[in-house]
Amino acid sequence: MTRKLRLGMVGGGQGAFIGDVHRMAARLDGEWELVAGALSSDPARAMASARDLGLAPDRSYASFEDMAKTEAARPDGIDAVAIVTPNHMHAAPCIAFLRQNIHVICDKPLTATLEQAAEIAKAAQASTAQFFLTHNYTGYPLIRQARDMVKAGDLGDIRLVQVEYAQDWLTEEVSNKQADWRTDPARSGAGGCVGDIGTHAYNIARFVSGLTVESLSAELTSFVPGRALDDNVQAKLRFAGSARGSLWASQVAVGNENGLRLRIYGSKAGLDWAQENPNVMTFTRFGEAKQILTRGGAVANDSNHAAARVPAGHPEGYLEGFANLYRDAAAAIRAQQDNKSIPVENLVSLEDGLDGMRFIQACVQSSENNGAWTRLADV
Amino acid sequence: MTRKLRLGMVGGGQGAFIGDVHRMAARLDGEWELVAGALSSDPARAMASARDLGLAPDRSYASFEDMAKTEAARPDGIDAVAIVTPNHMHAAPCIAFLRQNIHVICDKPLTATLEQAAEIAKAAQASTAQFFLTHNYTGYPLIRQARDMVKAGDLGDIRLVQVEYAQDWLTEEVSNKQADWRTDPARSGAGGCVGDIGTHAYNIARFVSGLTVESLSAELTSFVPGRALDDNVQAKLRFAGSARGSLWASQVAVGNENGLRLRIYGSKAGLDWAQENPNVMTFTRFGEAKQILTRGGAVANDSNHAAARVPAGHPEGYLEGFANLYRDAAAAIRAQQDNKSIPVENLVSLEDGLDGMRFIQACVQSSENNGAWTRLADV
Amino acid sequence: MTRKLRLGMVGGGQGAFIGDVHRMAARLDGEWELVAGALSSDPARAMASARDLGLAPDRSYASFEDMAKTEAARPDGIDAVAIVTPNHMHAAPCIAFLRQNIHVICDKPLTATLEQAAEIAKAAQASTAQFFLTHNYTGYPLIRQARDMVKAGDLGDIRLVQVEYAQDWLTEEVSNKQADWRTDPARSGAGGCVGDIGTHAYNIARFVSGLTVESLSAELTSFVPGRALDDNVQAKLRFAGSARGSLWASQVAVGNENGLRLRIYGSKAGLDWAQENPNVMTFTRFGEAKQILTRGGAVANDSNHAAARVPAGHPEGYLEGFANLYRDAAAAIRAQQDNKSIPVENLVSLEDGLDGMRFIQACVQSSENNGAWTRLADV
Amino acid sequence: MTRKLRLGMVGGGQGAFIGDVHRMAARLDGEWELVAGALSSDPARAMASARDLGLAPDRSYASFEDMAKTEAARPDGIDAVAIVTPNHMHAAPCIAFLRQNIHVICDKPLTATLEQAAEIAKAAQASTAQFFLTHNYTGYPLIRQARDMVKAGDLGDIRLVQVEYAQDWLTEEVSNKQADWRTDPARSGAGGCVGDIGTHAYNIARFVSGLTVESLSAELTSFVPGRALDDNVQAKLRFAGSARGSLWASQVAVGNENGLRLRIYGSKAGLDWAQENPNVMTFTRFGEAKQILTRGGAVANDSNHAAARVPAGHPEGYLEGFANLYRDAAAAIRAQQDNKSIPVENLVSLEDGLDGMRFIQACVQSSENNGAWTRLADV
Repeated sequence: MTRKLRLGMVGGGQGAFIGDVHRMAARLDGEWELVAGALSSDPARAMASARDLGLAPDRSYASFEDMAKTEAARPDGIDAVAIVTPNHMHAAPCIAFLRQNIHVICDKPLTATLEQAAEIAKAAQASTAQFFLTHNYTGYPLIRQARDMVKAGDLGDIRLVQVEYAQDWLTEEVSNKQADWRTDPARSGAGGCVGDIGTHAYNIARFVSGLTVESLSAELTSFVPGRALDDNVQAKLRFAGSARGSLWASQVAVGNENGLRLRIYGSKAGLDWAQENPNVMTFTRFGEAKQILTRGGAVANDSNHAAARVPAGHPEGYLEGFANLYRDAAAAIRAQQDNKSIPVENLVSLEDGLDGMRFIQACVQSSENNGAWTRLADV
Repeated sequence: MTRKLRLGMVGGGQGAFIGDVHRMAARLDGEWELVAGALSSDPARAMASARDLGLAPDRSYASFEDMAKTEAARPDGIDAVAIVTPNHMHAAPCIAFLRQNIHVICDKPLTATLEQAAEIAKAAQASTAQFFLTHNYTGYPLIRQARDMVKAGDLGDIRLVQVEYAQDWLTEEVSNKQADWRTDPARSGAGGCVGDIGTHAYNIARFVSGLTVESLSAELTSFVPGRALDDNVQAKLRFAGSARGSLWASQVAVGNENGLRLRIYGSKAGLDWAQENPNVMTFTRFGEAKQILTRGGAVANDSNHAAARVPAGHPEGYLEGFANLYRDAAAAIRAQQDNKSIPVENLVSLEDGLDGMRFIQACVQSSENNGAWTRLADV
Repeated sequence: MTRKLRLGMVGGGQGAFIGDVHRMAARLDGEWELVAGALSSDPARAMASARDLGLAPDRSYASFEDMAKTEAARPDGIDAVAIVTPNHMHAAPCIAFLRQNIHVICDKPLTATLEQAAEIAKAAQASTAQFFLTHNYTGYPLIRQARDMVKAGDLGDIRLVQVEYAQDWLTEEVSNKQADWRTDPARSGAGGCVGDIGTHAYNIARFVSGLTVESLSAELTSFVPGRALDDNVQAKLRFAGSARGSLWASQVAVGNENGLRLRIYGSKAGLDWAQENPNVMTFTRFGEAKQILTRGGAVANDSNHAAARVPAGHPEGYLEGFANLYRDAAAAIRAQQDNKSIPVENLVSLEDGLDGMRFIQACVQSSENNGAWTRLADV
Repeated sequence: MTRKLRLGMVGGGQGAFIGDVHRMAARLDGEWELVAGALSSDPARAMASARDLGLAPDRSYASFEDMAKTEAARPDGIDAVAIVTPNHMHAAPCIAFLRQNIHVICDKPLTATLEQAAEIAKAAQASTAQFFLTHNYTGYPLIRQARDMVKAGDLGDIRLVQVEYAQDWLTEEVSNKQADWRTDPARSGAGGCVGDIGTHAYNIARFVSGLTVESLSAELTSFVPGRALDDNVQAKLRFAGSARGSLWASQVAVGNENGLRLRIYGSKAGLDWAQENPNVMTFTRFGEAKQILTRGGAVANDSNHAAARVPAGHPEGYLEGFANLYRDAAAAIRAQQDNKSIPVENLVSLEDGLDGMRFIQACVQSSENNGAWTRLADV
């Protein structure tokens, strides 16, 4: 084995949720070691967090700008940085590290605004570094098998894509670290639920179907009095070609913990997958018995096996899926370091991130316009 | 026990599906006996069908007009007639029997056109007979428990109603008795899938939520080339008050047999029920464990128990639910015969049928108008 | 259609559970009409029950002996009688009607004791009448498909039969009409849970596997203090040939309503079916994806279709399965009346009933003998 | 954070399954670093495996004896060693490291024979080191919640423990690295399926119920011709007190990937948990609705939360459960290093391992003795 890749992190200090997830995902396969961080905008918290994580004191930074410059100058500087701040704080660090040609692994959605997203795109263009967006649900083995099956024509012509993502944790007015920034336009952007989880649903629908959404008709609702952003979104989707779809995301659907579900129907067959038990997926060819496909199981294809770690029946979950993105990023970075061709098949690209931002914006505009069909290319 | 009620039937000859269902439903509780019929527009088939069913030869009629008049004149004439013809053949027999003050049990949707529906309504107004529409899914014990729970405020203020009805039997071009009329505008009316199963979804959403749909934005699609009517409908719903919803019905969703599912979310709790295993329903109060409620089970309420026949764990199904409508109709008719107050709580009324027709029409108009929000009151 | 068959009933008066089930099952397909009964050993209750059911007063009998003789003498006498009394009251009426050559449809288990069972067998031998035992779970369409699949070799050589039947209604001391006789040795016989539901589990295991149980090792337990009969049974089974199995039946397994489940594993494939959602069954060929087979669905075989009434996805349940036994009995009786060959494939025979009694007895003996392997042929 | 604990490994070279699992489990929380190994008895493979894992060449050992001595002598020697060899190769390395007072994390079952197990016990007695056995299913958050619930009396008096563990990978004759040693008495010991997965089932039943098994009646079967060890075990269990149970483990149950399931019934309530979707468990109080408890969910208790890493609805799986054992071992070791009281509540002890060996032996003896009840204390 070659050396572990060196990872830095911006955000993810004490009390953070997603920063910890990124760290566990990075650890699982032994491909990465966390060596540097600007873990909090609060210097004391940043320092305490770094100590918790065993970072060398000189690699715990008070600012990401300092970190980007200093790490770039070190011979043992970080190979990549994970950006795990709230949405409005993605663009600036992304750009800072891209400018230093340090690879960026950025949490989703890409940014809080389309303008910020465009700035990242500009910086990426000028950089030799790669950009990875952690739409982690693409890391599930069965999602990758599903994508391959669609691509191979197993479903025939795709007709329908039904995607939903239902949670309930914002059912009532709530105030805590996680809820506060997600319901604050200044930190989240114009989309609440639609940005936080709607983009995941949108991304996975596109990832598996391989289709582009041309236009949509959306209704954003805020059910909890006083909430500044939507906590529910209903959208009809028109894909390029003749496929149609609907997307529902909600954070007030009582009884749903993290109910991301994707159903795709074609002229020959249909697929059904749900995140809460991600190790199974049903597949039905028209006129045949429904089949239960499993992660690593009897009819797992290459992508499924490649993304699985333990035998079928030994459930893998959220962290393993997330870890696949870190493993893929490592492979892509090592390939570049070795001047080899970069395996991109499983990567969520910057362009996917931009498309996700257009999705949010289109939903917001359509909803403000009483559900008028809105082209993503026009926002 | 008082005498069995006497039932006649229009339609439902050899090879019919829903006619047989009505007959089984009517038999189950021993409240009805089938004694007369105009079972087919083809006289030979009508006669053969009547023989199969053991009808007296003089009560097998070549025309429903003749049947209505003759039965009305008999001292032992039918108490009620079941209309189980294709949609476009509902109105004429309904009106004929209503004019004779014979109770009508009509299959759904009410008619093929709003005009026909209005004519039935007029005839009903002038008749002493009752009118029953067999939106049979309202007969499920847990659906009735759900309605009671909503009414009692167990869910708090209703925010979201997600209803779907997915089948796959029209995935390919097909020609048979059941498919032909359902895909023929002349016999079905302007709605295909939306009329055949979309109305069931719509009806059950309203039945349980107790809410009225004010307007909708719909997209009807016909995925199978050459099909004259929609085989898929996506609709966003705006209920009176602030509740929102979405409705999806499809007959090309491969892998779905009869996937009617209703989810309702309120400010306090959520419900989830699916027709294919109708003996269970989940109920979650916000912040508590999800509960599995069962038909006839530990926390069944009065409506649940009243609609159940066998103990919990002994599954009941489609026919039992349907039979509840016949039992309810019998109770309503006997009450009227005995000059008692008619128990209407569980009945699907003519007004519900009219509302269903407006739903179909609104979907068709909205879809033709690129998904414009369309008020049901305006169609 | 030929005339309806005429049914009489012994037991099943007001407040009975299984009598009502038999009546609904008999009604569903319109093949039977209930015309006579000795519905209760309490004359007033018998009369009131008969009135509820619309029986003619002269065909409501105070004793089954009288009924057997009188009905046999009537030109329009009953074709068959349903025996729905507690176990210890099966033998006498069975014998009385068999002696009059009136067909008998008897609830399970056959009797309370092996001696009584032998007497029925003797009477049956001397009678021209047929004997039907209502192990109703054999009526489920997928159970019949499963039996055919096993017989056709789809599973290869059968290795394992795992059957369980878990309920919880006797978790605590309870006193009511249903519980009292089932926990009373005088009325139930030596088996409590093992007789009431263990025999169902045993019967369905044999019905589907086609295998004979040679010996068993059982432990009967009575968990509720003061209960005279077992409320739980664990048994290991040795089938003729090399197959092995285990059977668990319990009436104190909290959280189980009516959890009958059958799993059969062969050298090539495995099957899994559970009664609470009887419309699905999984089937897995070794090395292939698990399939979900459905009642009436895409890969339903002839037996499945023949036992189904409504299309796939429209759930059928307990009563429809039970009704299949009445339909099968009707077909067998009509065949005999028409001097045709009797279709026996789906029938539960008297010999099955005797075997069930030996199963109960073997369990009791084995348990008294500290789980010693006990041959059914030896009890 | 204090320093990472230093881990060594015996076994787990290229192609191994469980060695890789241990490494991922050790990595996930960042508490351990793998620094030394005797990864294979084949020196070349050992060296190549060490290189793959980035071990320093001088810490890749050709023999565990050498490793134990050398590491014990290093100032930066390993804190603990993971033993991941086949069963018959557990005892010698365990003893070697215990003698050096190096903590041992040993895979299950403890050994191939009771004699070997006794030797480990002796060595452990004489050592200051701790001994951990990786019955990893005890690491699942809901299993720990279940244990707490039983202990708190939520189920009342325990009556029944039904545990099963069904796989199908040995359905046919097979030869590969994993299958070969598991079906070889010389490497596995006298138990095949009963040792490999039966012990897991046994362990989890005891862990959750808190009960001791006094005696059992077992039947071991080998269905595949020519197989030297059992591939199926059926056992009845008698617990201390009045509880009864049954255990079924199979590796020829076609259609089962890794079907470990535990059901516990008490006088007040019942629990049901299955490993393949370990994030949910049902709990039913007698007379109340069944509840679905989730990992990290609404009614998660302290043990559940402590063992969970990500929010409810974000599934965790096999590796996370396994990682909990490494996290617990780390905590126990650090406590000892810090002269603090060792938190033992979640630990699987050496005594548990010995008990598991007695379970295997009792099953083998009982089966050889035609299922005679066999006391574990007597083997």
